[in-house]
Formats: sequence, C-alpha cells, structure tokens
Amino acid sequence: MFTSSTMSRQFTRLIRFLGTDSKVYFGDAILPSGVKDARLATEAYLIGGDIFGSYTVTDTKVGISKLLSPLNDAHTRTVRFVGMNYGKHADELGLPRPQYPVLFFKPVTALNGPTEDVIVPRIAQATDATDYECELVVVIGKRCRDVNKKEALDYVLGYSCGNDLSQRTWQTERGGGQFSLGKMYDGWAPFGPAIVSPKLAGNPDNLKLSTKVNGEIVQDADTTDMIHKVADVVSFYSQGSTLMPGDLIFTGTPFGVAAGRNPHNWLKDGDVVEIEVENLGTLKNKIVFEKGEKPKL
Amino acid sequence: MFTSSTMSRQFTRLIRFLGTDSKVYFGDAILPSGVKDARLATEAYLIGGDIFGSYTVTDTKVGISKLLSPLNDAHTRTVRFVGMNYGKHADELGLPRPQYPVLFFKPVTALNGPTEDVIVPRIAQATDATDYECELVVVIGKRCRDVNKKEALDYVLGYSCGNDLSQRTWQTERGGGQFSLGKMYDGWAPFGPAIVSPKLAGNPDNLKLSTKVNGEIVQDADTTDMIHKVADVVSFYSQGSTLMPGDLIFTGTPFGVAAGRNPHNWLKDGDVVEIEVENLGTLKNKIVFEKGEKPKL
Repeated sequence: MFTSSTMSRQFTRLIRFLGTDSKVYFGDAILPSGVKDARLATEAYLIGGDIFGSYTVTDTKVGISKLLSPLNDAHTRTVRFVGMNYGKHADELGLPRPQYPVLFFKPVTALNGPTEDVIVPRIAQATDATDYECELVVVIGKRCRDVNKKEALDYVLGYSCGNDLSQRTWQTERGGGQFSLGKMYDGWAPFGPAIVSPKLAGNPDNLKLSTKVNGEIVQDADTTDMIHKVADVVSFYSQGSTLMPGDLIFTGTPFGVAAGRNPHNWLKDGDVVEIEVENLGTLKNKIVFEKGEKPKL
Repeated sequence: MFTSSTMSRQFTRLIRFLGTDSKVYFGDAILPSGVKDARLATEAYLIGGDIFGSYTVTDTKVGISKLLSPLNDAHTRTVRFVGMNYGKHADELGLPRPQYPVLFFKPVTALNGPTEDVIVPRIAQATDATDYECELVVVIGKRCRDVNKKEALDYVLGYSCGNDLSQRTWQTERGGGQFSLGKMYDGWAPFGPAIVSPKLAGNPDNLKLSTKVNGEIVQDADTTDMIHKVADVVSFYSQGSTLMPGDLIFTGTPFGVAAGRNPHNWLKDGDVVEIEVENLGTLKNKIVFEKGEKPKL
C-alpha cells in the first residue's frame, strides 16, 4: 500500500535493556545473520519515540549490560492468559478440551525479565508443587475492541516467550476453583528475551516451543496443537473488552508440565528453567526459594 | 505519635471530578454536616500533590460538574476480587464456604465511574444473565508485601462502594471454570462515589450494604457476614504478591444476587442499579444494552 509518509525502519527484535552506560533503553537487538536469540546480542540500535505509536530505530548503537523484561508495569496494564489451550495438555490432566478460550489474569507485578531469578515466596512453599509452563506470548500493539478473527493479528506488535509459573496446590486445591492464587506471585510471569516482529516470528500457529529444566527437555511441542489459535484468542478476548497497547496474552502451555508427570518432579530451589519458542529466542530463569519463616494462615 | 513535619489536613471523601471549568481534579468533597454521600456535593476542596504520597487539601473550592471514577488506569494497576465471601451468598448458590479468599481479577479497563452507564456488550447479551453484586471496595494506599493481619489496614487509603457486574452464563458455564470471561467487560467494575477515609468509614467489617434495582431493594446485608474479614484479605493477597498504591480489592457480595433468585430477574436494558455502603455513599449506574449484531462465535 502506498503511504506518503517517510518509511521508517521497523524493529526486528525489540528489547529493553540496561546499557553499558547504566541507562535503560528500548533497542533493536543486533545479531549476526542466522542468529535469532536476542540473548546473544551484545549491542542494540537505540529506539526513540513511542514503541506503540511513532518510533524510530536509530543508527546509534549501545552496548547491552543486561536484558530487562521487554515491558513492565509502566507499559502493560493487563496480562491475560489462556488456560487449557493445547489438546495434549488437556489430555494429560484428564480435562475436556474447552469450547471457548479459558481466560485468567496475573497482576502486572508478576512480569519479570528473561534472565532474572524467579522467587518462590514462602507461601508458595506450603507444599511442593511449583511448575513451569512454556508459552507463546502475544504483545498487543494497538487498542482494539470487538476485532474480528481476520483482522485480529493486525493489532499484534510482536511475539515473545513466556513462562506461566504455577503453584498447583494453591491453583487447583485451595483457590476455590479459580487459578489465580497459585499464579499471582511477584515475578511469576517472566517473558522475553525480545518482542519479535510478526514478520520474523512467522506463523504463530506453527512454532515449536519447549522447556528445559537443568538442561533436560520436559516440554517439547508445537503451537499447531493449540485448540484456540492466536487470532481467535485475540478476537475473543476483545469482545466487549478493550485490549490496550502493551497488554500481553500468554496463549497456553502444551503437554509435559510437572503436574501431568509421574513422578511430578516439581521445581526445586536452584533449578534453571529455559523456555524456547521457535524464532523468538530463549527465556532462562533460575528458581530461587525465598528464605524465612512460612506465613501462618 | 509526635512528628516533626507540619501536619497537613487529611482528605475525608476523596473524589475525582470534572470541574465546572471543564478540568479534571482530585478533591475533597464538601458536604453539609451529617451528609455522607459525595454524590450530593456541589463543590470540593482541590487536592494537590500525590494522593498516595504527599498531598495537600487546599482551601481552593471548585464546582463539581460530574463525578468520575475515583481512580482509573492512570492510577490503578490491579483490580482484585474476592469470590464467595459472604456466608449467606455461598448458601444461596449452594456452595461451600471457602477456607481461603477466592481470588480473581478484572482488567483495569473494567473500572467505571459512579454515575456512568454500564454498557452490556453484544457478547454478554448471548444469554439473559446479567447480574449485580454490591461490594465494599478497599483502596490500597501504600505498597506492601507479606503484610500481617494486624498491620494490614495501615496500608489502606480508604473505602468505596463497588458493583461487580457479572454475566452468569459466561462466568459459570462457558469460562472453563474461571470466572473472568463473564466479568471482564469494559466498565463492569464501577466504583465510587468517593474514596472515604478509614476514619469516616468506620469498622469495615461492620457496615451495611445494599443494592436497589429501579428503586427496589434486592440485596440488603452487612459486612459482618463476611467470611474473610478485610484485614485478612489484604494480608492474604499480599503474601508473595506486592500490592501497589491504587490497587483495588472488591471484597465480595452478599446474599440476594439475581443468580440466587427464583425467578432470576436478570438486569434489563434501562435498569438503574444503586449500590449503597454505610458511610460511603451511593453508586448509581444505568444498564445500557449495546446495539448491533451479536458476534459470531
């Protein structure tokens, strides 16, 4: 389509990072040809302006000291999730495949970066039941409501990898049927390392995704197994409810969670969890159990 | 306790409003002695500074053109709810009294003002099942995590009235067990008319609250029937999860919702719902069914 405005360069892999000059920036990760993981970038082109509106990928390079959560509570209002969205995952938990996307939320305080520790708070140590969930994350770029399925992906800024950490006892046994108690903890929704442009991400309904715990593969699947496809979810969640720029949708996890295993192999203090989604890079977080007396309930 | 800083006047009934000069302000509602409902105020003292930090109730009066939602997505990150928190409400739905507070969320886009229309979007008209829920709303004033029950109320800025609008079919039959699909719609969490200081609110565990639909009382209860008291809820929700200034907690609804009635008397287009909480004023919203073709699912 012809546009009379000057075409500016679009980002490829949008990162937020602490520069070697100790300032925080948005940038476009600079990677060698063929490398797709923004974690391997040592430099980025600075991005100026509003990443949800008019922005410029500049020619100014800055060294990366540390990758941060691509967005945080300064940019993101609402973090939505889809429960039970992979056929084989529903099967492993012995649950029916849902007719509509199963919606739940985490607070924005759950957001966390792609290299940070995930702290298991004392209340979540009440039982041994901390679990990983690798997920494809959708980042909303433009405000929308009642968007139809055909146009839904036009409102997506990009895609990322996410881990929907879950404490299964609080989620399923002590939450009165609602998932949130076992998922709400600070930093239990790490995502990153980058927001990858739709062009580089490829078809979101056809991406491999996996989880490794201490280097061992525990989830190994493909978004083709999704019950509700990405465009369907964006469209459905926007019915009567405005999706805002910076909102995130974690689109569900496939087969292979600890809850579905025998023995369970729950996450332990010091475990390292790596979530990889094809074309989107890797999220690598260490699990750290908080010290101190457990709260009396 | 002695403090060396100059004591400034605390707010009594904090409102956000459109002034007669068409500007938006925070103010302290000016009411005649004995009047407790900020809806009846025609003027307010302007408040300057940060309402969550250092603020000043000035002597400058401004006329009120319209009351707004006391907070919106510029101030509030997370809107938490307690499900099934009144004994008689659990009984009317035939459900057990929960051992722990049942946590769920609405997006901040659900916030709405104390005089605004509540729009029932087309998707929520799929069945006749729109319901009211009068609730006491807690406004968090200071960041806290792992706060104990004895200190929990120290982190409360004030209290307000809220309506947790709910579409029961989407909430209970089509949500895969999660409540959010039937509660997430834009404007379905109206609250106000003011944030009332803890001093003026009185004991939050001993307040009458009620709902009228078109002037007829349909809920008429008392927070003494709460299963999990306000301090317990604030403390519990803060375990491992940081509560932020401006966060809201809707503390549950008592007996009398349409879902528990026979016949149900679901909310209809044009109905007027008034939620009153003792000492906190009244929230009055008209129910307006959105026009247009229903979405195909």
